[in-house]
Amino acid sequence: MTVVKWNVRAGAYYDSVVLMQLQRGLLELNGVLDAGVVMATQANRDLLATNNLLPADISANPDDLLIVVKADDDNSATEAIGKVDELLARRKSSTVSEDFRPRSLSAAIKQLPEANWVLISVPGRYAAGVAREALELGKHVFLYSDNVSLEDEIALKKTAREKGLLVMGPDCGTAIINAIGLGFANRVRRGSIGVVGASGTGTQAVTAQIHNLGAGISHAIGTGGRDLKSDVGAITAHQALDLLARDPDTKVIALISKPPSPAVATQLISAAQETGKPVVVYFIGYPAPARKIGNLHFAVSLSEAAELSVGELENRRILQSSNSRFLRGLFSGGTLAYEMMVGLQASLSPLYSNGPITPNQNLKDPLKSEAHSIIDLGDEFFMVGRLHPMIDNDLRIRRIKQEAADADVGMILFDVVLGEGSHVNPAGELVPVIKEIREKRIGELKSSGGRVAPNDFGGAYRDHREHGELEFVAIVIGTDEDPQNVQSQVSKLEDVGVKVFRTASEAVEYVSLRLSRREANQFVQVNLEQLKQPLAGINVGLESFYESLTSQGAQAVHVEWKPPAGGNERLASLLAKMKSKKEN
Amino acid sequence: MTVVKWNVRAGAYYDSVVLMQLQRGLLELNGVLDAGVVMATQANRDLLATNNLLPADISANPDDLLIVVKADDDNSATEAIGKVDELLARRKSSTVSEDFRPRSLSAAIKQLPEANWVLISVPGRYAAGVAREALELGKHVFLYSDNVSLEDEIALKKTAREKGLLVMGPDCGTAIINAIGLGFANRVRRGSIGVVGASGTGTQAVTAQIHNLGAGISHAIGTGGRDLKSDVGAITAHQALDLLARDPDTKVIALISKPPSPAVATQLISAAQETGKPVVVYFIGYPAPARKIGNLHFAVSLSEAAELSVGELENRRILQSSNSRFLRGLFSGGTLAYEMMVGLQASLSPLYSNGPITPNQNLKDPLKSEAHSIIDLGDEFFMVGRLHPMIDNDLRIRRIKQEAADADVGMILFDVVLGEGSHVNPAGELVPVIKEIREKRIGELKSSGGRVAPNDFGGAYRDHREHGELEFVAIVIGTDEDPQNVQSQVSKLEDVGVKVFRTASEAVEYVSLRLSRREANQFVQVNLEQLKQPLAGINVGLESFYESLTSQGAQAVHVEWKPPAGGNERLASLLAKMKSKKEN
Repeated sequence: MTVVKWNVRAGAYYDSVVLMQLQRGLLELNGVLDAGVVMATQANRDLLATNNLLPADISANPDDLLIVVKADDDNSATEAIGKVDELLARRKSSTVSEDFRPRSLSAAIKQLPEANWVLISVPGRYAAGVAREALELGKHVFLYSDNVSLEDEIALKKTAREKGLLVMGPDCGTAIINAIGLGFANRVRRGSIGVVGASGTGTQAVTAQIHNLGAGISHAIGTGGRDLKSDVGAITAHQALDLLARDPDTKVIALISKPPSPAVATQLISAAQETGKPVVVYFIGYPAPARKIGNLHFAVSLSEAAELSVGELENRRILQSSNSRFLRGLFSGGTLAYEMMVGLQASLSPLYSNGPITPNQNLKDPLKSEAHSIIDLGDEFFMVGRLHPMIDNDLRIRRIKQEAADADVGMILFDVVLGEGSHVNPAGELVPVIKEIREKRIGELKSSGGRVAPNDFGGAYRDHREHGELEFVAIVIGTDEDPQNVQSQVSKLEDVGVKVFRTASEAVEYVSLRLSRREANQFVQVNLEQLKQPLAGINVGLESFYESLTSQGAQAVHVEWKPPAGGNERLASLLAKMKSKKEN
Repeated sequence: MTVVKWNVRAGAYYDSVVLMQLQRGLLELNGVLDAGVVMATQANRDLLATNNLLPADISANPDDLLIVVKADDDNSATEAIGKVDELLARRKSSTVSEDFRPRSLSAAIKQLPEANWVLISVPGRYAAGVAREALELGKHVFLYSDNVSLEDEIALKKTAREKGLLVMGPDCGTAIINAIGLGFANRVRRGSIGVVGASGTGTQAVTAQIHNLGAGISHAIGTGGRDLKSDVGAITAHQALDLLARDPDTKVIALISKPPSPAVATQLISAAQETGKPVVVYFIGYPAPARKIGNLHFAVSLSEAAELSVGELENRRILQSSNSRFLRGLFSGGTLAYEMMVGLQASLSPLYSNGPITPNQNLKDPLKSEAHSIIDLGDEFFMVGRLHPMIDNDLRIRRIKQEAADADVGMILFDVVLGEGSHVNPAGELVPVIKEIREKRIGELKSSGGRVAPNDFGGAYRDHREHGELEFVAIVIGTDEDPQNVQSQVSKLEDVGVKVFRTASEAVEYVSLRLSRREANQFVQVNLEQLKQPLAGINVGLESFYESLTSQGAQAVHVEWKPPAGGNERLASLLAKMKSKKEN
């Protein structure tokens, strides 16, 4: 008959390597069938239960260490539990040169003054404190630890940003700085693709694939998964993009993340555009707004992100002019309106519609546009007793006038859908209205001293566009066999300065490039030269990360870290109080 | 001073062309500055107000016709309102050969017995009745009308399915049958790309672009936007896919829709796979699960859907075997788990995870898989006091055993992430467990008489796979420079019959093809030969649709339709009661 015995050790701190080794040590003992060595959290208790290792009458707190042994017989179980201390001690003696190891961060830095990075993988509740200390000592932080609070993350990143330092993480699994992998990282050749990764395995998959495709990595900067949530505001991702933009060795940037919060996405897309370098964006599980918008390329999988990055190694700088006012899209085709929403939601914010994709895009009153708005004029709301806007332009003409009267509007976008069943000459009806609006605006501009070339409509309008005037953009859907003559429809529109596209995708790219915000960086730039110095790191936490640094040829020091007061939290808080009194 | 005058006409029916022409007629009168002619719904009143055409003291019901005129002076306004009857009459006399027009659907069919289609564009509240009549007469229905109830749509489509007839719509803007455009349709050359479109302008944009790229359309079948919601269950889309699959002139199919309900998406994807033809899928605004899964190609824009369709014209048939049991994915990399979710949610249902994309995918207990499940074993839930599963395989090995013990599990999928920081030999730890599970299963199979080739592990396992045994699939992320030796890790796994992929995308394709459901069609097939006969149509509603049919060379009859009892609903319901009494 099998017997289960256990032992509870209250409040003491053990690192997870010690716990794993203890469990393995127990399993090797005579007669032991299974063993569990865990902190007694609810999740871990459930796990033990799944493995039939949780006796019903056990009592332990989440901070307690719980050791369970299942054995062939009572003797073996008792003997195994009795060997716990010995096994814990055996593990101790196996670590090398422990005596020479510093026991604090500041001591470690004295030992390795050129250290520019601190790697932290201590348990979550201690990690923020160590990170704060590292920042105070002027070091970049690679924060592997999870279970760090959001408040701590925000505070740490704000401090880091003020100092021009990086905090990669918390819960950052992977980075490659100067050819040295931090945390979990594949060995890849150096090259000219930089990576900003809010996901650890995402960064691993992309960097490994880039290597496998024959290219290499300049730096892969991790941010931690929460960086792109609105609370944190992508502080690290923005620093990283800025750094890679300035790095002459980085020719292409790959930006990998789970879908960011909408406002954060807009800012990041804008920052990515600002880099001027080709940026391959993969927001996992987020519909790609387009294949390509200017210098941005959107991937649909990790491996495609790698492929596109390698393909884009030829550096191209893109000149972008910008229109800082609002878009009003007035569509007869519901699907075209929807596709514009999908394509523009990544770069325009806030964006509203009577055919929203997400609830927060819902336009309160379909009759009144707000900020950037896309209106489907063929929606049922407008359709009772009225012909479809593909047949009757009245509703759209009135709405164009309404939008043009709004001084905050910088662009009016509309579709012209030709073919059977549609109006015989939609451009013929729309052009006079556009001309009238144009002439009114030119009159106003003339009287205020603006530059005008009135004999050339197209030219005049282009000049006005450059002056930030109202732009008209049209998507014309049609074929050369359509009854309306697509070429003449296009010409009519172009003659009054309308920018015409034949597919929605081209319009998405144009509108996005014209209207997306450009904002100068507000933060202290991370020192690029320092980043390029040979990596020297101080490791606090998992010893395997230290070993991995040295095996890659990086200078490193491992801190023989213990939590304050050996993990006894009451004692720790007493000590902290005494310390702060002394300082005051 | 401008004067606004108005006129309310209670309860009478006018079609929207008449209303538009009346409004235009009023605008041409002397002294008239603006005019509005609308059914007095709230939306239309708001529109009038936006155009300063809504006097404060107006009183009218939504069923009433409201005529408003704004003029230079009182005289002009009064005169314009006085001309309303005359203008309505003038419009009447302009239509041609009205006398010879049938006034009912059955009369029209007597006039054109070869008619196989009925086009319906009468106001929404009458449309279902006309459609029902058309189905009873054995005709396919093109239902342009909007504002038709969901209940009516479901009832109509179920009736149609039983009869092997199509109901395209309601709110179906566009179709092309046998080179004849119905509703709004671009003129395109005939060709071998078939389209199933749940969106009108989507279909127009794609068919026009296909034409512009030099290819052509076999048929473009509209479904109406609500067809792909779970209530309707994509009845028309399924019929259309089946029809195009059987049509030898259709070589490639494009399937265009806003994102369907999840369960509907799974069934449609499965039906699209079943066609065996290349199918280009574009669910607008839905993240593409992959570039390609077998015969399915996923586009990210309307124009790309057209480009991929033209590119796929070379017909390829794909042989697929199938495993009808459940997937259990056990990941150390959170991002890889998430990318699998994105890739598999379209084809596997129900799919659960402790890192869900949508709330309905949330796995109640991370310790217990359900149906298809993807578990991120590196999630914080599992991580308190425990090493990451990239370092410590214990948790994963236990979970693999747990999943293998579940007879409903057909595939265990896992990742092996190599590189710095990771376990030195993960395959070495995983392989013995897989081998043990295999041998146990082989033993069971042997004793039940299954075919086994025990001297060749790989071969034996492949045989078992074909017998529906437990499959193991791995994604190995690594490079040739990684400390673990990626080739030997891959070989170790392959030696025990694990199917190994080096990217998540390849695994998505494989798993999706292996595990997605295949169901035979349960419905009466639409007659393909009939569809290929020259299109002859009966038009009920917008006269312009009739004109467009004849201008394309199709035979057509226009019904001089009026609502029952001239739109007087009380009278209509009395008449209906009398009629049903007579029949009883």
